[in-house]
Parts: sequence; C-alpha cells; structure tokens
Amino acid sequence: MPFKPFNYRDRLNALAEQMAEHDLDLALLFDRDNVRYFTGFRLNRVMNSILAVSADAVPTYIVAQLDLARAKRDCWIERVIPFVEDTSNYLSALRPLFKDSLKRVGVETDALTIHQAEHLRKMGGLGLEFVDARSITTKLRLIKSEEEIACIRHAARIADRVMEQVLQEIKPGVTEAELVGKVEYLMRLQGAEGASFEPFAMSGENAWLPQRVASDKPLKEGELVLLDMGAVYEGYSSDLTRTFSVGRVSDEQQRLFHVAYKAQQAAVAAVRPGIPASEVDAVARRVIEQEGLGDYFPHLTGHGVGVSTHEPPILDRGVDMVLQPGMVTTIEPGIYLPGVGAARVEDMVLVTESGCEVLTTAPRDLVKKA
Amino acid sequence: MPFKPFNYRDRLNALAEQMAEHDLDLALLFDRDNVRYFTGFRLNRVMNSILAVSADAVPTYIVAQLDLARAKRDCWIERVIPFVEDTSNYLSALRPLFKDSLKRVGVETDALTIHQAEHLRKMGGLGLEFVDARSITTKLRLIKSEEEIACIRHAARIADRVMEQVLQEIKPGVTEAELVGKVEYLMRLQGAEGASFEPFAMSGENAWLPQRVASDKPLKEGELVLLDMGAVYEGYSSDLTRTFSVGRVSDEQQRLFHVAYKAQQAAVAAVRPGIPASEVDAVARRVIEQEGLGDYFPHLTGHGVGVSTHEPPILDRGVDMVLQPGMVTTIEPGIYLPGVGAARVEDMVLVTESGCEVLTTAPRDLVKKA
Repeated sequence: MPFKPFNYRDRLNALAEQMAEHDLDLALLFDRDNVRYFTGFRLNRVMNSILAVSADAVPTYIVAQLDLARAKRDCWIERVIPFVEDTSNYLSALRPLFKDSLKRVGVETDALTIHQAEHLRKMGGLGLEFVDARSITTKLRLIKSEEEIACIRHAARIADRVMEQVLQEIKPGVTEAELVGKVEYLMRLQGAEGASFEPFAMSGENAWLPQRVASDKPLKEGELVLLDMGAVYEGYSSDLTRTFSVGRVSDEQQRLFHVAYKAQQAAVAAVRPGIPASEVDAVARRVIEQEGLGDYFPHLTGHGVGVSTHEPPILDRGVDMVLQPGMVTTIEPGIYLPGVGAARVEDMVLVTESGCEVLTTAPRDLVKKA
Repeated sequence: MPFKPFNYRDRLNALAEQMAEHDLDLALLFDRDNVRYFTGFRLNRVMNSILAVSADAVPTYIVAQLDLARAKRDCWIERVIPFVEDTSNYLSALRPLFKDSLKRVGVETDALTIHQAEHLRKMGGLGLEFVDARSITTKLRLIKSEEEIACIRHAARIADRVMEQVLQEIKPGVTEAELVGKVEYLMRLQGAEGASFEPFAMSGENAWLPQRVASDKPLKEGELVLLDMGAVYEGYSSDLTRTFSVGRVSDEQQRLFHVAYKAQQAAVAAVRPGIPASEVDAVARRVIEQEGLGDYFPHLTGHGVGVSTHEPPILDRGVDMVLQPGMVTTIEPGIYLPGVGAARVEDMVLVTESGCEVLTTAPRDLVKKA
C-alpha cells in the first residue's frame, strides 16, 4: 500500500481495553467489516471469516481452509486456524477457544445467527452469555485516523475520476446497466478492490420511483439521471452521487436540481464538531421544505463511511450523536418528484476542528453535452 | 423476461404445504436468495427485505421504505409494507403479523440474527418457537423447473461468451484485476444483472496459494492462470472456471492441467440420477489420487447452482444426497501444486433422466496465443 500502514496491534489493544470495561472474557467477531478492520485481511466478497480476541488481547483468526495459506502469509495475526467450508458444524474450529471459565462473550448480535449462537452455546456450556459488542466496535471505528483518512481520500479520488470519465461519455441511448458496468470497470482500472456497493443509475421514471438498481432502460434526452457509486481502496469505501441531464432540461427539473443542491450545500456548511447529526439533517430538510418539496425527500441526509460504506454517524431525524473531528460522512439530501424527476448531489465530508472538508470533487453541474 | 415467467403462486403454495407438514403458523424468510425465489423481486445487493407467509399461504412482503413504490409496481405480492432503514427496531414493521395464537415460526436459523430473534420474541410473546425452515426451502429449490433451467442456461451462455471474449484478449502484462474488471463489464453488456460472485483471476504463485481474489499482479508468460466467474440472469446464477497459460507451458504444468481436466471429465461422465453426491466426488478424487496428486486437491468437486450461486447439492466427501433429474451442479475438481501452478476446469451440468447435460461450453484448451 502506498500509504502509511495501519497499526492493527493498536486497534486490537483498544478493543481489549473496551472488552475489559464491559467485563468480556472473549470477543467473537463475525461481521466482515469488523473482521477486516482488525485483521486487514481482504477476502473474496462471498467468503467469511471469524476473529476471536481473548481478554488479554490475543487474537485468533479463523478462516476457510482454502484461505489458510494466504492468511498465514499476509495477515499480521500469528494464530490462524481453518474451518471447513460447506458443513453445518464449521464452528467446531472454535472449540479450542472455549474454556469452562468462559462466561461473557462479545458478539455482534446483528451479525451472529441463531444457528451459530446455538452451536457456540453447545461448546460453551450453560454459563455462556452473549453481550452485544457492536457498540464497542462502532465507537472504535467512528473517528478515523490519519492513515484511514488517506485511504478514504484515495477511494474518493477513484470515484471522482470515474464519475468524470463516465459523465464525459454519456449520451442518449446508453442504458443504465451499461453506465454502471462502465463505472465498475473503470474503478478496477483505477486500482479499486471493487465497487463499495452495487452502483446504480436511475433515469426518468426510474429515478423518482426510486429504482435503486440499474435496468436496461436507455437514457433519453431531457431526463434527470442519478448515478450513485463508490470504490473500495485498501478496505475503505467511497460514496458519490451526481445528477445530470443529457441535453435539454425543463424549468421544473432545473428547479428540482437546484433545491436539492442548495439543501446539500447548506448541510455541508452546517457540518462542524459539536453539532448533532439530526441538526445537519434538519438543515437540509428545512431548505427542501421551504421550497414546498418536503414530502419528496424520503430518506436520510447522510451516513458515515469507512470500512463499511454505510455506518454511523447516521445523519437523520432523531439521531442525537454529535459530530466530532475525524468522522467521515456523506451529505446527500434528495428529491424525488413523480412526473418531473429526481435530484441528489452526494459528497463525502471529513469533520475537521473548525468545520469540514469536502472529500469528493467531481463536477456538480446538471446539464451534460449530449 | 424473454422466457416463460415463473409461477410464484405455485412456489408459495408448495411452501405452505411444507409449512403444514411441519406444523408452522408462519414463515419469516430473511435470506435474500430465498426471498428472491418466492417474490421474484430484485433488490440492490446492499439491500434486504423480508417475506412473511401465513399458514394459509398469504404472503406479506416487507421492504425498505425506499423500495416500496417499486415493489408495489413490480412484485406479484399484493400486500407490501415498508420498514424504516437505519433503525435498530425496523422489525416493528412485522408487528401486524404477530397474533397471540402464533407459536411455531419457520425461519432460516442460519440467516436470522440473535438481535432479530430477540425483537421477534418480544413481539410474539413467550410461546414463540423458532423452527428451522432452511430444510424446507432447500427441498423446494433443489429440482429446477423448465423455466428455471432456461434462465440458468442463459446465465451460463453469458459466462461462456464473456470467457471466450476475455480469453481472446489476454496477454502478458494484463493484471488479474484488469481481467476481472473486464469480465464484470462484459457480463453487464451481455444483459447480466451483475456477477454471481466476486470473480477472480489467480496467476502463478497466486493460483497455487490459492489467492481467491484478483490482485494487481500482471500475468506472465509461462504461468498457469485460473479465471473463475459467473453471471446472474433474472435472479439465476452461472459459475465457470477455465485454466490457461499465456504462451509457453512446462511439461509439469501441462500434466497438472490434464490430470485436473481428466478428473473433471470423469466426474461429469459419472453424473446420473441415483448416484450419491459423494460418489461423484470420489470419481474425481480417485483420478487425481491415482496420479499421486491427491494431497493437492483441497476442496469439493462441485456444488448446486440456482438462485444461489452456491447451494445444495454439495458434491463432496460424506454427502449422501442422491442426484436427481433437474438438479444443476458444478463439476470443478482442482489441483494446486506449489512451485508449479494450479489447474481447474469447471463446468455446470444439468442432471437428466439418463445422465447429464453440460451447460457451459467455453473452450477448455490450455494454451492461449500471447
């Protein structure tokens, strides 16, 4: 990696400290983004692995038999053990970690399945208690280090470049799916591990529905088109949306875009340390409401971005989390007006000591040459 | 869709029949492939939805608020209700389904998280009991209908075409990641919904490791290269691997390839109704063992393919499931010999009344022109 390497040992020590505070005897992490955060090990998206961390901060990494040789070569963790794929009792690999003294085990309760829980309980005995470790890992991952920000910046740069490239090439007749295919391809060529989520282009009536998957519908002149995409670089995500029209655009469409853009700019300007997430959302929502379009803004204003493409802080109604320097979040209010179109400008911002820095820079203008 | 549409009502009735047999009051399906199978509704890969089915076969489809309009327009299910994204109590949307009389609820225990289970228990009361519904859905999905086979054939054809296209273009210096990016792009252009899994190319030392993700390593002359990929068409997957060498290849590499290929051909020839899955595996394994390479074949011989890219039947040691007409499975024994290379030929086969039909046809020869 061209950037300063992460200090995984520090990350693990921070986890162990939190484990002590929550009186955990063991942490078992199944969530692939959490596992990546602590191991640094990239897996094929269809594969999973498990990270076990003892109370004295000793990690054991449990990977599929076929990933064992690579994990032993590439992962910083010394103790790597295999599980057998395609069997229902693959968790037996964890047996050496289960001692009689084991009581409180930290797990992501939103990742551990009841089948897995049952298997672990069988190995751990009746005294075993599962404690949610998600609040711990969320806390540890919330403020990005300098090294993490460097990777996020790079992932943002890849998205910016690819957005510029595809926007230069678009013309009526190109389908949503072709556009998205091009995005994925160009991201790979720019050095991305892949897309940070299934990118989508939504045009015309697909946009205001909203469709959220690319279809084989061709872009037509005079439509508003949303393109939402992001890259993964060294495990870190980016997320970027632009709205554009190929050629002609009506006054009403233009207004829609400018309200969405104004709301986004107002929310970006509001981002600073100490502001509650819900207040940033309220800033964007007020702009759209004042224009009489409040009913057509059906989602959040933004979400955190890091090893997960969608993580806290969630910038939405009712979220009282307070922004702090080092957080990275999207700002992406959107308007979806049936019969007219949809408009959303999404950028990533880094919360700084004095306000925020916008990390994505692809051109935001509406009308593209056909 | 250019093919005969699926009869989702029949699928649901078959599920309800099985529910009656297992004395279930309700089925709650969270697994995205199961949900797709019964609803036919395509979601962005980062989104989820839930299908509830009552004992009298009435479905309720629960989707994210933002997917509601499209689900109401496109999904055959009449009752579609929304859940709120990015909240921890999004399962409250299911409350209307929870009556006091509810006792036995079928769920995929390998998909339902303990957080979800706890929430459901709170709504359902103390009498609620979770029963694994995975065995039911597996049984229902095991034998493919004519309509399903048509889609799988089409997904296989996309993979074949893309494999032929990229193999014609490869040359030393192209990176694994570029190759994979091209694969994803061409699959989109051929009408795929996307890749059925994260495709990977592994070359030289990456292949025998095995690496299982594409890296920025360039292909070099004289290396064996594995390219594993598949497409999704109308929700159905394909899966295809070819091994090739750019230019020069040693006798030992050639032998490796021919043993892997011979093992694969022997296993394909063994596929017929009535044969246990483990016996097909044994046929491939014997060929490789007889050549003294048994220690270098570390995985299964094949797996089923359908709405999931990796599903039963699993063709491996110890699996006594018996093959039946209408099953679709891969045949893909592989050899990974440190210092020499790796070789695997993977095809998809459909079990027929008399044997099997090979569904993938991309050229299998080893040496490509540089």
